[in-house]
Order: sequence, then C-alpha cells, then structure tokens
Amino acid sequence: MDAVDLNCDMGESFGNYTCGMDTDIAEYISSANAACGFHAGDPLVMEKTVKLCKSKGVAVGAHPGFPDLVGFGRRQMQVAPDELRTLVMYQVGALKTFCDAAGIKLQHVKPHGAMYNMAGKDEAMAQIICEAIKAVDPSLILMGLSGSMLLKAAKATGLRAASEVFADRAYEEDGSLVARSKPGAVITDEDEAIERVVSMVRDHKVKAITGKEIEVQADSICLHGDSVKALVFAKKISQTLREKGIKIVPLGEVVS
Amino acid sequence: MDAVDLNCDMGESFGNYTCGMDTDIAEYISSANAACGFHAGDPLVMEKTVKLCKSKGVAVGAHPGFPDLVGFGRRQMQVAPDELRTLVMYQVGALKTFCDAAGIKLQHVKPHGAMYNMAGKDEAMAQIICEAIKAVDPSLILMGLSGSMLLKAAKATGLRAASEVFADRAYEEDGSLVARSKPGAVITDEDEAIERVVSMVRDHKVKAITGKEIEVQADSICLHGDSVKALVFAKKISQTLREKGIKIVPLGEVVS
Amino acid sequence: MDAVDLNCDMGESFGNYTCGMDTDIAEYISSANAACGFHAGDPLVMEKTVKLCKSKGVAVGAHPGFPDLVGFGRRQMQVAPDELRTLVMYQVGALKTFCDAAGIKLQHVKPHGAMYNMAGKDEAMAQIICEAIKAVDPSLILMGLSGSMLLKAAKATGLRAASEVFADRAYEEDGSLVARSKPGAVITDEDEAIERVVSMVRDHKVKAITGKEIEVQADSICLHGDSVKALVFAKKISQTLREKGIKIVPLGEVVS
Amino acid sequence: MDAVDLNCDMGESFGNYTCGMDTDIAEYISSANAACGFHAGDPLVMEKTVKLCKSKGVAVGAHPGFPDLVGFGRRQMQVAPDELRTLVMYQVGALKTFCDAAGIKLQHVKPHGAMYNMAGKDEAMAQIICEAIKAVDPSLILMGLSGSMLLKAAKATGLRAASEVFADRAYEEDGSLVARSKPGAVITDEDEAIERVVSMVRDHKVKAITGKEIEVQADSICLHGDSVKALVFAKKISQTLREKGIKIVPLGEVVS
Repeated sequence: MDAVDLNCDMGESFGNYTCGMDTDIAEYISSANAACGFHAGDPLVMEKTVKLCKSKGVAVGAHPGFPDLVGFGRRQMQVAPDELRTLVMYQVGALKTFCDAAGIKLQHVKPHGAMYNMAGKDEAMAQIICEAIKAVDPSLILMGLSGSMLLKAAKATGLRAASEVFADRAYEEDGSLVARSKPGAVITDEDEAIERVVSMVRDHKVKAITGKEIEVQADSICLHGDSVKALVFAKKISQTLREKGIKIVPLGEVVS
Repeated sequence: MDAVDLNCDMGESFGNYTCGMDTDIAEYISSANAACGFHAGDPLVMEKTVKLCKSKGVAVGAHPGFPDLVGFGRRQMQVAPDELRTLVMYQVGALKTFCDAAGIKLQHVKPHGAMYNMAGKDEAMAQIICEAIKAVDPSLILMGLSGSMLLKAAKATGLRAASEVFADRAYEEDGSLVARSKPGAVITDEDEAIERVVSMVRDHKVKAITGKEIEVQADSICLHGDSVKALVFAKKISQTLREKGIKIVPLGEVVS
Repeated sequence: MDAVDLNCDMGESFGNYTCGMDTDIAEYISSANAACGFHAGDPLVMEKTVKLCKSKGVAVGAHPGFPDLVGFGRRQMQVAPDELRTLVMYQVGALKTFCDAAGIKLQHVKPHGAMYNMAGKDEAMAQIICEAIKAVDPSLILMGLSGSMLLKAAKATGLRAASEVFADRAYEEDGSLVARSKPGAVITDEDEAIERVVSMVRDHKVKAITGKEIEVQADSICLHGDSVKALVFAKKISQTLREKGIKIVPLGEVVS
Repeated sequence: MDAVDLNCDMGESFGNYTCGMDTDIAEYISSANAACGFHAGDPLVMEKTVKLCKSKGVAVGAHPGFPDLVGFGRRQMQVAPDELRTLVMYQVGALKTFCDAAGIKLQHVKPHGAMYNMAGKDEAMAQIICEAIKAVDPSLILMGLSGSMLLKAAKATGLRAASEVFADRAYEEDGSLVARSKPGAVITDEDEAIERVVSMVRDHKVKAITGKEIEVQADSICLHGDSVKALVFAKKISQTLREKGIKIVPLGEVVS
C-alpha cells in the first residue's frame, strides 16, 4: 500500500511573538519540523511543541537554521565549515533533549530556510550538515529537497534520507524547483496540486513545467500552517490522499 | 584517602572574543564548567572545550546561564519557572550533545553567575533547576555553593549533589560566604588560602570570619583560569594538595 | 478647553514576526511609543513606524526597553547605572535618527515594560533614565506613570514630564495602580472606564478602589492596539472624549 | 604640505569581552572607526570609546556592521536593500547620539568587515549604504577602499569620500587588493610598508604586485590596534610620516 508523510514547520513562535497555527495543523500532519532557537523558537516554545506533537501523535524533527532571528534564517550567510557543523549539532542536540525528556524519539532533521536552499546545491555544506546530524544520532533521518545535494550527502554519510516534495510548486525537467520568479512556478489550483501529489506518491512521476513527465521520489509533502487557507488545504489533501488509499504516516515508516 | 575535585569555568570565549586561558588551566583541574551559549560560549567553542577536556582527562560539566551575553549572565533576571526550566534543559542538552559526540560523559551541571547566586538562596528556583537537570539526565551531578539551597534541592530531587567551596573567600558562621563588600571577605594570602582548603577537605572544618570553627563540606574547589596569577595559584594548590596526600579527582569520584 | 493625549505602543513587530495592529490604532491615537530594537522592533520596523505615524499625524516617542527580546522587556533585570544610561541613550538616539530622517521631531520617551515599572518606584533608576534622555535631547518629554518616581526625576532633571493614566486600571488611595492580583484591579466595564477618564482629564480626580476620591494628573491615556477589542475601545473612547469637548492632541500640546 | 589620516577600528569590546588596545592606539591615530553594537561594541563601550577619542583628540567615525556578533560581522550575509539601509541608519544614528552627547561631531562612516568588502564591489549595496549615511547626516564622510564602488557611490550621492589604503597589502594593477591567498599579498617588511605609504600619500603612486607603478589616492591609512606588534608599527609609521613632512590629521582635514 502507498504511504507518504505530511510535514510542516512548527514551533516558530518566539517569546511574546506567535507564529503559525501549530495546534490546528497538528491535526493533519504526520511529522513536524520544530525550530531550535536560532532562526525562530525558544526553549519554552520547543518544549511545548514537542509536547503538542506527542499528544497528537505527530513525529518530531529538528529544523535547525542560521543564527539570524531578525532574518528568520532566510538570509544566506557565509558560515565556515566548523561553525556550520557545530551550530547544527547544537540545535539538533537541544531539540533532542526535549524529545528525550518527553519520552519520544527525535525522528528527523530538516535544515531551514537559506541553509536548506544553500545546502541543496552545495555538496560541501550538505556533507557537513549530514555529518553533524550523524554525530548527534546516526539513526536520525535527513529530510531534504527531492533530488538535492542534501539527499546525496545523507546517503554518502550513511543516514537515511527522505525526499521532500512540494504540492504547490512546479518542477524543471531536471527535478529542481522552478524559480519563484518564473511564470507558472506556483501551482495555484488546489485540485491540480493534490492530483500532482497523488501522482508523485503513487507513480513516482510528475509533469515538469515543460510538459515532459519526470521521475520524482516523494517521501514527504511539505505543508504550511500559517494561515486559515493553508489549514483548509492541509485538511483537503490529507482527506484526498486517504480516499485514494494512500496512508499518511510519519517519515520513519516511509523511508527504510 | 582524602580526595577533592578542582573545578574551573571554561569555554567562555565567543566568536572573535577570547576569554580565559583554557589550555593552561586544564593542566591543573579535574572538572570544567563549560559555558553553553547563553551568557558565553558558542557552539564551536563548546566543541573545542569538550575536546580539550577529553584530551586532558578533565571531566566536563555544563555551566548554564541567563540569556544575557552582554551582561555575561551576571545580572539578575526575573525569569518565569517554565522559562527557567526550559532554558536550563536547552543549554545542558546542547552541551551533552557535544560530550556524547566526543564519546565522553557529561558529568555535572553548575549554574552560572546570577543564576548560581539567586538559586543558592531561592528554594523554588533551585528546585526548578534541579528538575531541569534531572529531566535531561538523572545521573548528572549538581554542583552548588556549600550549604546552599541548590544542594538541598538536588538531594530532594534525587540528584547527586557536590558541595563547592572557595579557596579565597571568608565564611560567615552559618556557612555562607562573607559579602565582598565586607572587610576580610577575600583571603589574599595564598598560603592561608591553601591551608584553609586542606582543612576543609580533610577535616570538613574552616575558621569563620568571626574566628569560630565551623563545619563545611568540600567536594570541589573553585579555581580561576583567567590570569597568569590564577594559573600560578592553581598550580600551587594542586601541588600542595597532592603533597598533603589529598587526591585530585573528578567530581564523580568524590560524591557518591 | 480640556485636552489629553492618547498614546499606544507601536512598532513591536520584529523581522518575520508581526505584533500589534499599528495601522488601525494609528487612527485613534495622538502619540505612539515606538519600540527601539532591544525588547521589540528592528531598524526596518522602526523606519516604517515613524513613516506611518508621520502620515497619520501621530507624534512619535521612543519606547526603550531592557535588552531581552525573548522576554519582551517584561522581565526585571539588574542593570548597572552606566549600562542603563547608555542603553537608553542608544535606543532613543537610534529612533531619533529615523525621526530626523523623516523630517519629524521625536516628541517623548516612555520606558517600556519592566524598566517602566522598576523606574517608577526606584529613584536612582528614574534619575539615570531622565539624564540619559536629557543627554540625547533636553527638549524631549518624559512619559511616566502618574505619581511615579519617573515624573519626579524628570522634573528634577529639567525635562518636561507627562503623567500617564490607565483607563482600565483601578487606583489605590496613594495614586498607585492596584496590583493586578487584587480583585477589582481591572475596570472591565468600558463605559465606567471612559467615565473615569473624563473625570481624570477634566476634574483631575478619580475614585480610588477604596471609594475615596483622589487627585490625579492625566496628560496621556494609555491605549492598546493588539486586538480588535482594543481597537473598538480606542475608537469609543476617542469619540466620547471629543463629544465631551475634550480635545485629543499630541503630548507636546498637553504638557508645558 | 602633504597630509594623511591614520585610522583604526576601536570600541570592539563587548560586555565582559575586551578586544583591542584602544587606549594605546589612540596615541597614534587621527580617526577611529567605532563599532556600533551589531558585530561588536555595546552602548557602554560606545560611550567610552567616544569619550576616549575626545580626550585624545581623535576624530570619531561609525563602523556599522552586519547583525552577526558571533561572526564579528565578517561573514557575508544576504541582506535586503530596506534592511541594509535601515540597519546602517540605526547604527550610525546610535553612535552619533553618543558623539552629540559628548559635544563632538561624528566625522565619518566606514562599513565594517563583510559589509565593507561586499559593498566595495557591489554598486547597489554601495549606493544604499551611502544613501543611509546621507539620511542620517549629509555632512558625514564615507570611508571606503581606494578605488572601490563605495567611493563612487559616495560621490554619486553627494557625500564626501575618503580613499583608504593599507600599508601592509599589495595591490593589483587595477588598484584592487591582491587576494590574501596569493603569494606576496601581505607586505611583511615594515620599512617597505612605510615607504609605500609615503609614496602613496606624497606621489599618489604605488608599485603594483606586477612591478608596474599605478596611481592611488591615499586619504587615510588603516592601522591595527589589537597587538603589541601593531602598536609598535603604528608608532613607527606615525613618526616616519612626520619626519618626512607629512602631517597626520583627521579625515575631515584631508578630504574636501
């Protein structure tokens, strides 16, 4: 039977600032990427996020980012290899602590924002991140963009690798995401988006922006939980997938 | 045979800023309190500190502080219980990650600066800190000021507790430190300081500032590593203790 | 003719985090307290806030806070006099820069959160804050809690002082706010709240929680802009004041 | 008579961390670039730096950097134009506040670290930085690398521009610095370094690494104050320049 993971960023609140509708989106997803205090999140938010996920049966992953709170980890930073390795270890280790204390297992690591994008194309960065993850716990799963350097580095490092796809993004023929600046980069029709996801999960295929059908591995689908519209879509895609006979399960049950 | 631990704060450098003579002081101590990134230290410094301690056979403890880099964690902050618990867990967990990755065991936790002083007198704070430590790892040792609330809370929580004394500070009759503002608060004569330490370790006694002899438990002696003078004293006290037949061993071998 | 200022905190967003309904509340207030980057706000938010206020004819004040973003400046911190003076100067000066660049005059300074509360009762802190403000620009108005040490210090320093009252808070006979923990501390009836404000502005009197009528100076009324309910109340109080013949004008036109 | 400015970074200490030998280097320089709290420095350090410079007759400039304390502003960051403009205004404005309060005039602005290097080659960044400086005070002088985009942007913006040269660095034929990775990039012979500076100041010429003589504008020479060796060199170059009849004067007296 086909199965896929639905993931969403969570725990991005910080002190007095609330970000995201975590309690609501937790109803529809199977894995959460929890911010670790560098680009978002704080220790108390991290503990709450872990407890929320535990209570909802959502698996927890770490979502480490660059040390750039005001830029929300979305700004490229030139970080030396030793700095990158240790800031990933620090963040993943801190989140793992809250998981251990709550009696659940940290499932995966998904780099955040600019780190995710840069490491997706930069083999050296990808390798360092994977080594950092392995140093914390070799049983952790690396979640990265389908076809990206992060996945290759994870396999080279001996980590399990989970291939992430986006329901609302168009793909180039080489499997990379169409840049947001290009027309057609974002799939706005929800039914089309869901249909594409079903095809990616069941047939490992999706139509590229050129019209050509390409192969794609879809272990996890990235959802959003920061608006009512996003919640409605999350509900719709999770229902449709189930109706189509596709099980929604945490990443650990999808990747081997 | 008598035994005592010699501890010193380490890993207080941050980015471009160097603080402390860590490599030098590591020669004389048996336990290090490593900063965890909130009042001092950064992930790369933490990794280096753990590796240095491992190479020198120095046991590693976490030295969590208030989130106040510019104040070096020395300024009192009114932190809510949930915030205190989670910021201690976060910092201890992050440091534990580097110890685990280096293949050594995190030995103890010593709260830093204002947190150490406040929790030494505030039962609720002390209790929260001990619960946070226990949540991370119940085998960790709590290091606190001799006779302080932190030690009582550790015992109440079921943690092993290590009683810290200061070689260069005078004591009141109730076992508390004489306030620095009072005359005679600091012992400036090195030989007298060492003699007092020997008495505290061997006989569990020290002469209070009033002249009366009081009981004191000395599991660990706090040294400093931030000046050449401090290094010279560290060498002298470690040599003298050994000559007097007092073994210098990590905390874990002193407290049961 | 009677006149009063309506003030509200603004510019508390930070990077990716939005806080407050600044554009909406700007319709009803005459003075804004703009966060300066230490407890909330960032340089871009500060510029936007100044420009918004300019476009709406709202006077701008600086709202300096403790360097505690995760605590939103609401946690007491023990800050040394030199630190306090310079961190107030830094924040007020930075906001003044954006006002100067926009071609408007920085009108006032209102300490934020824990700094406001601590300095309201601590003469030394109040004095340092007022000297810091004077050092930046002696024509700035200090806004503080009615009857507090901040107002006394402002007068002693030679600054103009604006007395702030709260529409929704009960007062003790000595003019201090009834602690939130006590029953009756918060006035929940909106009409009663507005009636009290009218009395404070027009007659300089308000009924204390004991029932006794006390004298109070009301130069500015503190409103909130962080919820729809708060906006509705702001609209209501501003309309009622106008209907009662009380002009709503920036602080600079209220205090002499 | 020939004249040149000697500049050095100052005020890079932070809280408990000391960086640089500010009091010593102040004896030999005519202009200081003071850190503004984002990559180094804190409000108290800024006030002390301004007062030190005033007492020594050293002109003060702002040294704004990226918001990256752990990276000391040396790591490239991708900052949006609005963010860049406002973070420069914020920092320059904050430092100007301390100058105004001390009764001295802020003289110049020199971007720090990665911002200096990136803007030296990126016309858009250079333009934004110059507009930010102009928005704070159009009489400020922009200091940038000789021949860089920053100088061009300053002139285009209507700011006075000061051309900075390095005593200890080799130049390519196009006037750019030889990359540190190349052999011969750093001039290690002190006498040769000083001779080159004299030639740059007096004849506006220097020998490129290829041996060809090129033209160069030298309004200010960058010195360092972070080691005893650097201090000795600063003393030597300042003496030699005076002996050669070259006056050492603040930037404002060099550029028109």
